[in-house]
Amino acid sequence: MSYTAPVKDMLFAIEHLARIDHVAQIPGFEDAGLDTAAAVLEECAKFNEGVVAPLNVEGDRNPSSFKDGQVTTTPGFKDAYAQFTEAGWQGLQHPAAFGGQGLPKTIGAACGEILHAANLSFALCPLLTDGAIEALLTAGSEELKAIYLEKLISGQWTGTMNLTEPQAGSDLAQVRTKAEPQGDGTYKVFGTKIFITYGEHDMAENIVHLVLARVAGAPEGVKGISLFVVPKFMVNSDGSLGARNDAHCVSIEHKLGIKASPTAVLQFGDHGGAIGYLVGEENRGLEYMFIMMNAARYGVGVQGIAVAERAYQQAVQYARERVQSRPVDGSLPAAGPIIHHPDVRRMLMTMRAYTEGCRAMASVAAAAFDAAHHHPDPQVARDNAAFYEFLVPLVKGYSTEMSQEVTSLGVQVHGGMGFIEETGAAQHYRDSKILTIYEGTTAIQANDLVGRKTARDGGQLAKAVAAQIEQTEAELQASGTADAQAVARRLAAARQAFLDAVDFMAANTKANPNAAFAGSVPYLMLAGNLVAGWQMGRALLVAQQLSSKGQDQAFMQAKIATARFYAEHILVKAPAQRDAIVEGAASVTALALDAF
Amino acid sequence: MSYTAPVKDMLFAIEHLARIDHVAQIPGFEDAGLDTAAAVLEECAKFNEGVVAPLNVEGDRNPSSFKDGQVTTTPGFKDAYAQFTEAGWQGLQHPAAFGGQGLPKTIGAACGEILHAANLSFALCPLLTDGAIEALLTAGSEELKAIYLEKLISGQWTGTMNLTEPQAGSDLAQVRTKAEPQGDGTYKVFGTKIFITYGEHDMAENIVHLVLARVAGAPEGVKGISLFVVPKFMVNSDGSLGARNDAHCVSIEHKLGIKASPTAVLQFGDHGGAIGYLVGEENRGLEYMFIMMNAARYGVGVQGIAVAERAYQQAVQYARERVQSRPVDGSLPAAGPIIHHPDVRRMLMTMRAYTEGCRAMASVAAAAFDAAHHHPDPQVARDNAAFYEFLVPLVKGYSTEMSQEVTSLGVQVHGGMGFIEETGAAQHYRDSKILTIYEGTTAIQANDLVGRKTARDGGQLAKAVAAQIEQTEAELQASGTADAQAVARRLAAARQAFLDAVDFMAANTKANPNAAFAGSVPYLMLAGNLVAGWQMGRALLVAQQLSSKGQDQAFMQAKIATARFYAEHILVKAPAQRDAIVEGAASVTALALDAF
Repeated sequence: MSYTAPVKDMLFAIEHLARIDHVAQIPGFEDAGLDTAAAVLEECAKFNEGVVAPLNVEGDRNPSSFKDGQVTTTPGFKDAYAQFTEAGWQGLQHPAAFGGQGLPKTIGAACGEILHAANLSFALCPLLTDGAIEALLTAGSEELKAIYLEKLISGQWTGTMNLTEPQAGSDLAQVRTKAEPQGDGTYKVFGTKIFITYGEHDMAENIVHLVLARVAGAPEGVKGISLFVVPKFMVNSDGSLGARNDAHCVSIEHKLGIKASPTAVLQFGDHGGAIGYLVGEENRGLEYMFIMMNAARYGVGVQGIAVAERAYQQAVQYARERVQSRPVDGSLPAAGPIIHHPDVRRMLMTMRAYTEGCRAMASVAAAAFDAAHHHPDPQVARDNAAFYEFLVPLVKGYSTEMSQEVTSLGVQVHGGMGFIEETGAAQHYRDSKILTIYEGTTAIQANDLVGRKTARDGGQLAKAVAAQIEQTEAELQASGTADAQAVARRLAAARQAFLDAVDFMAANTKANPNAAFAGSVPYLMLAGNLVAGWQMGRALLVAQQLSSKGQDQAFMQAKIATARFYAEHILVKAPAQRDAIVEGAASVTALALDAF
Repeated sequence: MSYTAPVKDMLFAIEHLARIDHVAQIPGFEDAGLDTAAAVLEECAKFNEGVVAPLNVEGDRNPSSFKDGQVTTTPGFKDAYAQFTEAGWQGLQHPAAFGGQGLPKTIGAACGEILHAANLSFALCPLLTDGAIEALLTAGSEELKAIYLEKLISGQWTGTMNLTEPQAGSDLAQVRTKAEPQGDGTYKVFGTKIFITYGEHDMAENIVHLVLARVAGAPEGVKGISLFVVPKFMVNSDGSLGARNDAHCVSIEHKLGIKASPTAVLQFGDHGGAIGYLVGEENRGLEYMFIMMNAARYGVGVQGIAVAERAYQQAVQYARERVQSRPVDGSLPAAGPIIHHPDVRRMLMTMRAYTEGCRAMASVAAAAFDAAHHHPDPQVARDNAAFYEFLVPLVKGYSTEMSQEVTSLGVQVHGGMGFIEETGAAQHYRDSKILTIYEGTTAIQANDLVGRKTARDGGQLAKAVAAQIEQTEAELQASGTADAQAVARRLAAARQAFLDAVDFMAANTKANPNAAFAGSVPYLMLAGNLVAGWQMGRALLVAQQLSSKGQDQAFMQAKIATARFYAEHILVKAPAQRDAIVEGAASVTALALDAF
């Protein structure tokens, strides 16, 4: 199944919702306006449609394999990766000082969606490298930056995140990997890490592992964790590769999906100790890891949107081709393509509306990131940082949960053919299942949303977001069309539901944590639903306006129809989400533990 | 992962909700009371836990394979099937006149759940044989019955349903397989059938294919379809096997799940014609096929409950063992098993409540089936038949959709380990995906519910069901406990939502079919949610009463807690489902076809 990047929809979001014209006013981004976005996205689409997307099915059928410590990636991956790096795609969002292109995330995130949609397994390698770059940029010494950044940003070397150990998944306090200072400024690292994405592979000449470990004598728990750079190959002072470091892949996992992406078990220090270099200061590793983690969390949210888009495209194509039964309204004289059946339309619209809503939310978040990091006015930067931080768990949690519903519908549209692996619809269903788990499960995102992003300031930030939504409702009401009013009505109900949930979280997170966290994931889903629905409402307003000016009528009408569908079929769930949170907390933990 | 049949919960449903005491008053079922149910279920549990369940993972890792026209099933399947037939399990619900045990469906359905939970792939073979038996019992000539029934009921031979062709999936009007009368009462059958479950295998000595085909000159569409028996091996007059018939497996599918169950492409008549025997009359094949289909649809619904139960058990076990993070309420001094975390509890409760609700609904439906087919009072039989017919699309559609949510949560509870195939949680997720597709997709079930079961009588039957629910609400209110009142409140809101949807369907199915069928699946989900929630409410009433008598307090308290959770977290969705159906129909089909 081919993939066509939804560049037009992306540019609509970038122009009208993320407001790239505002981003382009930030010093350093003067050249990163709509024209640049359009040019970069077109180029990105061309590359990924042509080179990366065709390897997606191949990666599923012919996964990465492991033998004698070596991982061989899917045939074609190495060559595609070489083309990827040669074209400079790894450096898109990274500083020009280290060879990057310094483009805003507003553009980079859309490129990320295209890359992930083309091939989720392939795209994970650059995604992890991005995280390593962010961590080194923020916390690395000048020496580490000088040695590693240029090679990572060019894609010549790749990066990994080494957090998980068999006993330490979500709970990083349990990390046992040790780092012993050697007196020369280096450390020797000993331990086992699991679930390391692209922890070993054959696409790049070196792999830069970023590893959480404990220095002897460090405090217990997360306050005693440090972050180390542990390269696969040592790096000589001239930048050339030296000896093999004592960090070895001992196996890779047999997974439900993203099979082409090697998930490694890494053994550090089995042959004398792996040489590691401290990043930043001792015992601040978790803080630095969160830099990578937050970048990766946003990226995983984008993966959800990407795989949803690809599943949608495949389902639409099948629904146009597969002939089965006469439409119930008699609009065709005989059996016709199943896209004529209302329930197939309902499934496709659900897929489409979720995907567009989450894309719009992610695009708006990307613009907030750019302002947070680069806006010259510190207050504007702070406000955008807070807004971005609020959105990250929604982009990650909501977009990935929705991707599983969307890919499931994608299989369902195909009927029996969907269950046959050759069709390819099932791959998206399998691939998407990891997205609600890695880089923090949905529950971990929800804890973040409830604890740090909602309760800590007594719900003030959440309410400020709600106030912005109320303004959109007013604009929708003022526009006077039936479509806008229908959306305004559902948006108002969802916002009110959200506000009740915010109050509940603010009141209960400390006083009755079981009640608050019983509703944390439903709260995340409610918030994600609301914010994505809000963006659909904003899109509708823009589309109405442009349509009334005669601009691109068919596209604008589709925007309006999709926004209304979102409101009436997805946003409509918000009051029940509120009831489950606010009125149903006790029944979550009422069953005695031994009664399960 | 081992499986323990939930016999106690099944017997609770059979005794108090399905009311087996009423079933045992029906002539012929005098010995089929609660004691018999308990004895049969215990025996069934023992057999399946010990023999069939251990083969479930093996079947996934070592699926059925195809070579030179032969299918070799997973190692162990053939022996387990021999034990299955020797113990007489195939004949459980079938007439004693042909060697069966003549037990009511009220007991048989629970045994079915145990068998399916033990091994979905294995259990499909008996499920299809059941369908063939039903069709022959209802429509077969005395001669066909004499030749085939005893061997099918003993399990010595197995049955298949041959409906689907490449161009004819849900749309059986497109069937092209031909049957040519030979003048001697037999026919020669020519054509290709796909997706034939256990269409070829090595577990039984003969396979009895029930095949839809067109006799030359028959009317177009579904009114020109006839049903034929086409045995794999011809049967001599003494019952021994004769020559190989011209019905051959040419390949089996590579599937997302239920991999041990061979899904065959069958070629009929490539070597001169496959000898077939007409079942009943020409051109009434669809009617007969629906006999098999309806039995199979109920059975597939039970598969959904079964795989949900198994996923639930596995998730509970993992949640008890996996230690990660300190509970938010500080109830443990350090990191504890994840079952202490409220969000894990929420996931497990969701899995549990869905499974219990659907099991209760299926159990009640089974008792209605028994009364429909065997009650001496024709009016009671008719009423039960109507109720059963109403419930079949709910048991099939709702239980299978819920099974996908439950098995997805099952993976999620496992975190990263869930994505690793060795864990086994992913198998349930993959296996369950077929359940909303085969034997009629959820949309096909919904069409049946909307068209034949709701709109045809103007919603009268649906409203009669709602009236019964209203009575349960009154009993809940009268009981006066907070739990009962909370459930009554959600039940009342859901019933009102359902009634609005019924009126909408009655008004629009003919007048505005696009609007009605845009909401058909949401309507099915709403109805299933309501009826399962109703059974949870009934269960709560019984549990309160028994608990107050001091009977099995812990079990009864768990029933009450689960019912309240169902009401507050699942039933609570009903009003939004109503809004989407009644107020959101237009937006389902508003997008222009070429805008997708």
